Amino acid sequence: MPVRLQKELEKLKKRILSLGAMVEEHVREAINATELRDADLAEKIIKSDYDIDELEMEIEEECLKVLALHQPVAIDLRFIIAVIKINNDLERVGDEAVNIAQRIKIIAKRKRLDIPFNYPLMAEKAAYMLKRSLDALVNMDDHLAVEVCGLDDEVDDMQSQAYDVIKQAISEHPNRVSYLINLLLVSRHLERIADHATNIAEEVVYLVQGEIVRHGKALSD
Amino acid sequence: MPVRLQKELEKLKKRILSLGAMVEEHVREAINATELRDADLAEKIIKSDYDIDELEMEIEEECLKVLALHQPVAIDLRFIIAVIKINNDLERVGDEAVNIAQRIKIIAKRKRLDIPFNYPLMAEKAAYMLKRSLDALVNMDDHLAVEVCGLDDEVDDMQSQAYDVIKQAISEHPNRVSYLINLLLVSRHLERIADHATNIAEEVVYLVQGEIVRHGKALSD
Repeated sequence: MPVRLQKELEKLKKRILSLGAMVEEHVREAINATELRDADLAEKIIKSDYDIDELEMEIEEECLKVLALHQPVAIDLRFIIAVIKINNDLERVGDEAVNIAQRIKIIAKRKRLDIPFNYPLMAEKAAYMLKRSLDALVNMDDHLAVEVCGLDDEVDDMQSQAYDVIKQAISEHPNRVSYLINLLLVSRHLERIADHATNIAEEVVYLVQGEIVRHGKALSD
Repeated sequence: MPVRLQKELEKLKKRILSLGAMVEEHVREAINATELRDADLAEKIIKSDYDIDELEMEIEEECLKVLALHQPVAIDLRFIIAVIKINNDLERVGDEAVNIAQRIKIIAKRKRLDIPFNYPLMAEKAAYMLKRSLDALVNMDDHLAVEVCGLDDEVDDMQSQAYDVIKQAISEHPNRVSYLINLLLVSRHLERIADHATNIAEEVVYLVQGEIVRHGKALSD
């Protein structure tokens, strides 16, 4: 690979990791805001989503420039296309953090009602999947990526639990429907974050193994 | 532009339109299944999502081949990247149709409870946005694309209405919480379909105008 192209690809890796770190931070803040019912923190997340959007646009422009100037082929071409798609997923994870923050702004105004569901654990799983999917990208580690895909079921199970717990809570507190539906939606946004992390991991498996393993096809390990 | 590249791009346009038509059909079937509480139709949608996934993978492979073989630059490069991203969005719209179908399978088992919310109208708006965003792509029509982006607010408003109507219905029928939450989620899936159509339309504006207009930046018309 020409040295200049190699340098450009290294630069892209660093930038997508920065975006990943920024997005991961937003997810963690969103769940802190959920735990603390903190409307100010929620507002901060909503406002700083702009930075994620800006960085996403810059990375995409960068990818297009590298494609046009270096006309990479084979694995390098695949890598850049993967970065474009992963970039897109990361931006949407940022949007999900904003969605959570918007729910919290509504919830924070109301009297607190605790339900027996472990939001921090679910959030931790989703954030972990995100982090590991990006580690897999940077190290071109398809084994790790396959592992991340496997975690998606755990998050889906937690989403089902949240649903059951909240259904029960609504029948016990029928006057708190709005509050409880917003809490249910927080868990759905977390589930979507895990879905995006799974998309990223699947993209990495595809990239490394050179074949499409999405859509529930068998993942080799 | 070399004649062979031009032919390849025409072929890609046709294929992405076929995928779009297939996905649009699934969205319409999903909403028929909602109206009719038809579990068999829902099952059919879930099973035939496989065809959408297959076609999406083929189109992406095709894009990579064209990039590697023809090494397009400028607008042709942008077009192919746009097709890769739009392809991805269409596949996810297919997933949302599956999500709706899964809700319907649950709902169909229970006694029908009608609520004063116009699901077919909301679905029609979402399917229309999808169709028009693809028309905009094929005709490279940024005016039409901007129009599609504007429709997203209408669908968001309907989602808020659905939320209010269902909140009210839950307080009137506290024993139907599960049924009603599933209906609420149907409207959320429709809203996400409209979001994907908006992403597609924004991609078209970007493609035609050569600048990024996503993330709520001013859309010129």
